[in-house]
Amino acid sequence: MENIINNYLPFVTLVGSVIALIFALFTAKKIMKYSEGNEKMQKISASIRKGANAYLKRQYSIVSVFFAFMFVVLCVMAACGLLTWFVPFAFVTGGFFSGLSGFVGMKIATLSNSRTANACISSLNKGLRVAFSAGSVMGFTVVGLGLLDISVWFILLKFVFKLPVDEITSAMLTFGMGASSMALFARVGGGIFTKAADVGADLVGKVEAGIPEDDPRNPAVIADNVGDNVGDVAGMGADLYESYVGSVISASALGVTAFGEMKAMALPMVMAALGIIASIIGSFLVRTSEKASQKQLLKALSRGTNTSAIIIAVLALPLTYYILGTVRYYFAILAGLVAGVLIGKATEYFTSDTYRPTKKLSDTSKTGAATIIIGGISLGMLSTVVPIIIVGACILIAFFVSGGTVSNPDHGLYGIALAAVGMLSTLGITLATDAYGPVADNAGGIAEMSGLDPEVRERTDALDSLGNTTAATGKGFAIGSAALTALALVASYINKVNTVSGGSADKSFDIMNPIVLVGLFIGACLPFIFAALTMDSVGKAAQSVVIEVRRQFKEIVGLMDGKAEPDYASCVDLCTRSSLKEMILPTIVAIVTPIAVGLLLGYKGVVGLLAGATASGFLMAIFMSNSGGAWDNAKKYIESGVHGGKGSDAHKAAVVGDTVGDPFKDTSGPSINILIKLLSMVSIVFAALVYNFHLL
Amino acid sequence: MENIINNYLPFVTLVGSVIALIFALFTAKKIMKYSEGNEKMQKISASIRKGANAYLKRQYSIVSVFFAFMFVVLCVMAACGLLTWFVPFAFVTGGFFSGLSGFVGMKIATLSNSRTANACISSLNKGLRVAFSAGSVMGFTVVGLGLLDISVWFILLKFVFKLPVDEITSAMLTFGMGASSMALFARVGGGIFTKAADVGADLVGKVEAGIPEDDPRNPAVIADNVGDNVGDVAGMGADLYESYVGSVISASALGVTAFGEMKAMALPMVMAALGIIASIIGSFLVRTSEKASQKQLLKALSRGTNTSAIIIAVLALPLTYYILGTVRYYFAILAGLVAGVLIGKATEYFTSDTYRPTKKLSDTSKTGAATIIIGGISLGMLSTVVPIIIVGACILIAFFVSGGTVSNPDHGLYGIALAAVGMLSTLGITLATDAYGPVADNAGGIAEMSGLDPEVRERTDALDSLGNTTAATGKGFAIGSAALTALALVASYINKVNTVSGGSADKSFDIMNPIVLVGLFIGACLPFIFAALTMDSVGKAAQSVVIEVRRQFKEIVGLMDGKAEPDYASCVDLCTRSSLKEMILPTIVAIVTPIAVGLLLGYKGVVGLLAGATASGFLMAIFMSNSGGAWDNAKKYIESGVHGGKGSDAHKAAVVGDTVGDPFKDTSGPSINILIKLLSMVSIVFAALVYNFHLL
Repeated sequence: MENIINNYLPFVTLVGSVIALIFALFTAKKIMKYSEGNEKMQKISASIRKGANAYLKRQYSIVSVFFAFMFVVLCVMAACGLLTWFVPFAFVTGGFFSGLSGFVGMKIATLSNSRTANACISSLNKGLRVAFSAGSVMGFTVVGLGLLDISVWFILLKFVFKLPVDEITSAMLTFGMGASSMALFARVGGGIFTKAADVGADLVGKVEAGIPEDDPRNPAVIADNVGDNVGDVAGMGADLYESYVGSVISASALGVTAFGEMKAMALPMVMAALGIIASIIGSFLVRTSEKASQKQLLKALSRGTNTSAIIIAVLALPLTYYILGTVRYYFAILAGLVAGVLIGKATEYFTSDTYRPTKKLSDTSKTGAATIIIGGISLGMLSTVVPIIIVGACILIAFFVSGGTVSNPDHGLYGIALAAVGMLSTLGITLATDAYGPVADNAGGIAEMSGLDPEVRERTDALDSLGNTTAATGKGFAIGSAALTALALVASYINKVNTVSGGSADKSFDIMNPIVLVGLFIGACLPFIFAALTMDSVGKAAQSVVIEVRRQFKEIVGLMDGKAEPDYASCVDLCTRSSLKEMILPTIVAIVTPIAVGLLLGYKGVVGLLAGATASGFLMAIFMSNSGGAWDNAKKYIESGVHGGKGSDAHKAAVVGDTVGDPFKDTSGPSINILIKLLSMVSIVFAALVYNFHLL
Repeated sequence: MENIINNYLPFVTLVGSVIALIFALFTAKKIMKYSEGNEKMQKISASIRKGANAYLKRQYSIVSVFFAFMFVVLCVMAACGLLTWFVPFAFVTGGFFSGLSGFVGMKIATLSNSRTANACISSLNKGLRVAFSAGSVMGFTVVGLGLLDISVWFILLKFVFKLPVDEITSAMLTFGMGASSMALFARVGGGIFTKAADVGADLVGKVEAGIPEDDPRNPAVIADNVGDNVGDVAGMGADLYESYVGSVISASALGVTAFGEMKAMALPMVMAALGIIASIIGSFLVRTSEKASQKQLLKALSRGTNTSAIIIAVLALPLTYYILGTVRYYFAILAGLVAGVLIGKATEYFTSDTYRPTKKLSDTSKTGAATIIIGGISLGMLSTVVPIIIVGACILIAFFVSGGTVSNPDHGLYGIALAAVGMLSTLGITLATDAYGPVADNAGGIAEMSGLDPEVRERTDALDSLGNTTAATGKGFAIGSAALTALALVASYINKVNTVSGGSADKSFDIMNPIVLVGLFIGACLPFIFAALTMDSVGKAAQSVVIEVRRQFKEIVGLMDGKAEPDYASCVDLCTRSSLKEMILPTIVAIVTPIAVGLLLGYKGVVGLLAGATASGFLMAIFMSNSGGAWDNAKKYIESGVHGGKGSDAHKAAVVGDTVGDPFKDTSGPSINILIKLLSMVSIVFAALVYNFHLL
C-alpha cells in the first residue's frame, strides 16, 4: 500500500494528462465541423490567422535565441558543478511546453472565430457552444501538457535515472523557470501587441476619424483582432501553463521537504489529475436551451465551474486522507479553493457595472477625463484591500491547519502550496470560461467587418460581455494562486540554499536585518519598474501604430468612402516588430535583477527581494487589473445609454479611461503575476552561484 | 567632561531653538515693513487670509475633539498601567506644536503674498527677498518649535521628574504620535482643500468657461489661493515639524538603546541645533544683484542650501568625535546628507522640463489625454528605482559603518536614525526654499486678480517655477528621511515591545513566519488604501466645487462680463466643509489599522505591517509625487510654446494630466510620508496593549 502510493500514484497524473489531451483533441474536432461562414468571413479569419501565425513564428524565433543562450549558460554552470545536468534540459522543456500551450490555444482560437460568428447567425446558444469549445481546447491543452511535462519528467528521473526524491523535485523546479520565462515573453510581447493595436486603432479610428469599432476601413482593425489572439489567447495560455505547473511542482517540492517521502509529492499531482476529471464533468454541464437569455447562459457557465469546484471540494477529502493518512491538509486545499472563488467575487464586485463601484466611476465621467482617471486609479487601489485580507487569511489557515509552527514551518509551507494547487485544480474549466472571451471578441470583429446582420454583432457582444464576468473569476484564481505559489517558491528557494550549503546556511531572515530589508525594498520596487516598462512599451508601440494609421488615412485615396482597402498587413507587421522589440527589456530586468541582487547582497537579500516583490506585485497586479476592468465596464455602461450614451462628453471621457486601462489590465497587470514567480524560479536555479559568490 | 556631555549638552538644543525662533521673529518683522500694495491687493489678500484663518480655526476645532478623545483613551490606558502618565500629555504637546508650526507658517504666508506681489512691481530680486523671507519664517519656526518641544520635555523629565534615560526617550517618542496625528490631519485636510479648489476652479473656469487661471470672475479663485496656504503651507509646516521631531527623537531613543548613555541621545539633538546655525548662515547668502536673471536667482538659492549642507558636513565630524569619542557614526550622518541631496537631484531629473523624461512626457500629449496619462504613470513608477537604490545604499552604509551586525543591530540602527537626522539637519533652509513657492504662487494670483502689469505676473511666475525646482530638492529630503525615520521607529517599536515584556519578548521577525508575512502584506496594502481614500476625497470635494462654480456662472447675472462679483466665500466654505469631512476617514484608518492588526496578529504581525508599509509607502510616495510633478511641468513646458502652446490639443491633454497629478503630488503622495511614521508611532504607544492582549 505505502509502496503503491510512493511509487506508482504519480502515474495517475500521466493518465489524467492523456485524458485532458484526448478531450481537447475531441473538442477541437467537433469545432472543425462547424462552418466557417461565407467567403468574406473566411477571408478575414484567414488574415487574422496569418497575422497571428506570423507573429508567433517570429516571437518563438526570438525567444529561442534567448533559450539557446540560457541553455549554454546553464550548461556552463552545470560543468562548474553549480547545477545538475538535468537543469538545462528541464529548463528548455518547460519553455517548450509553455510555448506549445499558447500556440495550440491561439491556433484553435483563430480557427474558431469565424465559426463562432457564423454560429451566432443561428442563435446565441450555438455561438456560446462554439466559443466555449474553443476555450475548452485551450484549457485542457494547458492542463494536459502541464501534467504531461510533470509526469514524464517524474518517470524519467525516478525510474530511468533513479534519483532520490529530493533531487527529483529539485530538478523539476527548474523547468518551472523555463515555463515562467516563456510565459513572461508571451504575456509581455502579446500584451504589448494587442494593446498597441487596440489603442492605435481606437485613437485614430474611433476618436479622430469617428468611425465605429472594428470598422473595415480602419487599417489597424486586423492587427487589433490578431492582438486578441496573440495576447489574450497565446499569452494567457503560456501564463496559465506556468501558474499550473508552478503550483504543482512547488507543492511537490515542499511536500518532500516536509515529509521526506514520495507520498507528499504525489498529493498535488493526483489532485491536479482529479481536477481534470472534475473539469471535464463540469464542462458537459455548460449547455442550455436554444432560446436562452444572457442570464441563463451565465448560469450555464457558472453551473459548470461550480460543479467542478464542488467535486474537487468533496473528493479532495478522501484523497488527502488516503495519500497522507490525515485530513488536516485537506483544509488547506479547501481554503485555497474558497479563497480563489472569493477573490473572483471581489474582482467582479469592483469591476462589473452591476455593482456600485463601477457605476460610481461612470458618474465621474460627467466632469471629464481627469476625474474618471482619478476615480479609476482610486477604485483600483482601494480594491486591493479585500483580496489582501482573503489571501492573508488563506495563508494563516493553510499554514496552521497543516501543522506549521514558527520553529518548524515545513508542513505549514506545504499547506500554503497545497492551497495554491486547490485554487488552480479546476483550471481546465475556469480557463475555458476565460479563454472563450477573446474568441467571441474576434467573432464580433468578423461579424462587423463582413457586414453581417447587426443582430449577430449583438449576440457576439453578449458573449463577449459574459466573458468579462467569467474572466473576472479567472483573474481571481490567477492572481491569488500567483501570490501563494510565489510564497511556496520562496520557501523552495530557502530549501535549495540549504541544500547547496550542505545544510550549513543560516535560515533566519529577520526583517530588521538590513540586508533582508534592502532586498525587500528593491523587490517591492520591481513590480513598479516592470509596470512602467511595459506601459511605456505599449505607449511607444501604440504611437507608431497611430502614425501609420494616420498616414494610411491620408495617403490611400478613397479609403474613407470604402472604395479602397487599407494596408492591414503593414499594421500587423508594425505591431509585431515593435512588440517583439519591446518585450525584451522587461524580461531581462526580471531575470537579471535577482541574480544581481544575489551576487551583491547574498541569499538573504534575495529572500527579502522575493518577499517584497510578492507583496507589492500582488497589490500592483490587482490594482492595475481592477482599475482597467472598471474603466472598461464604465465605458460599456455609458454606451448602454447612461449619462448621454455613445458620443456624449461623458462617453469621450470614459474612452480615455478605457484607453489608459488597456495596458493596465492586459499588459502590465497580468505580467506581474508571472514576474513574481519567475523571480523565485531564477533565484532557485542560480542559488548555488549566489551562495558561493557574493559580495556582502 | 563625560558629565558635561551626559547632562548638560542637550541644553545646547534649547539655545538652538531659541536662536531659530528669534531669527524667525526678526525675519517676520522685516517682512512686515514691506508695503501690502494698493487697496485692491490688500482687499484680496485680506479675503485669502480670512478664508485661511476660518479653515484652520475649524480644522483645529475638529482635530481638538480627536485629541481630547485620544487623551482620554491614553489616560485610561495609563490608569490600567499600560502607559506612563507622561504619555497623554506628551501626545497633546506634540499635536499642539505641530499645529502651531502650521499656523505660524500660514499666518506669515498670508501676510506676505500681497507684499511679494507688490515687491515684484519693483524687481524680481525684491520679490524673491520677500517670498524667501516668508519661507524662512516658516522654516525656522518649524525647527525652532521642534527643538523647543524636545528640549523642554527633556529638561522636565531629566531634571524635574528625574527619570532614567531610557524612560525619557520612551516618553518623548509618544509626543511624536501627537505630532504625526496632527500632521496627517493637516496634510490630508489641507491637501484635499487645495486640490478640490484647484481642480474645481480649473475644470469649470479654464476648461469649460475658457477664462484664464486666477481670473477674478472665477468663483473658486479665492478658494484656490486659500488652498495654497492651508495645504501647501500649513499642511507642509505640520508635516515637516513631524519629520524633524520624529527623526531626532527616534535617533535619541535608539542611541540610548545602543549606548545606554545620555551622550548618544545628545548627538542628534546637538546636530539639530548645529543645523539651525548652518541654516541661518546659509540663508544670509541668499541674495543677488537687483537685475539678476532667473538662473542667477536659482544660483543664489542653491548657494544658501549648499553652504548649509557643507557646514554641517564639516562640523559634524568633530562634533561626533567630541560626543561619542569615535568618528564612525559621522559617516552615517554624511551618508544621510548625501542621500538626501541625491534623491532631490533624482526627483529634479524626473520632474523638471529641462531633462528628457518630462520633455518626452510632453511629446505624448500629441496623441491625446490617454497617452499622457499612461506616460506620466509610467514615468512616476520608473522614477522609484533611483531613490530606492540610494536609500538602500544609505541604509547599508549607515548600518555597517556604525558597527551594526545581524546579531547585535543596535548600533547599526542608531546609525540609520542618525542618517535621517543628517538628512534633515538643514531643514531650516531647505524648508525656506520650499515654502516660499506657495507664497509666490499666491502673489501671482493677487497680481492677476488686481490687474497689475503683466510683467509683474511674469516675475511671480518666474519665482513660482523657481520654487518648483527647489521644491523637488525639498521633496527628496522629506521622502528619504521619512523612510529612514520610519525604519528607526520600527526599531524603537521592537525595543518598546522588549521593555513592555520585561525583556522576554522574542525579537526575531523572520520574513517566512506567516504572521510577519501577513502583517507585511497588510502593511504594503495600507498606502494603496490611503492613496485611494485621499484621491477619492479630492474627487468628491472637487465635484462639489464644480457644481457650485457652474451654479454661480449660471445664476449670477453679469458675472462673465465683470459686472457682478462672484460669491467667493461660498466656495471657500464649501471646500472647508468637504475637506474637513473627508480628512477624518483616512486618518482613522491610519490610526486604527496597526492597533487592530496588533490585537489580531500580535506584535510580530505589527512589525511585518510596519516594514511592509514603509517599503510600499516609500514607493507610492515617490511614484505619486513624481508623476504629479512631471505632469505639472509637462503642461508648463507646453505653455512655453512647445507642441502648439496654450490652447492647442496637446495643451488640453496636458491639462488633463496636470489635473490627475494634482491630488497625486499634493494630497496623497506627501500624506503617505506621514502615514508610514504615524503607523509606527501608534504601534509604540499601544505596544503594551497589543503585547498583553492579542489573538494569535
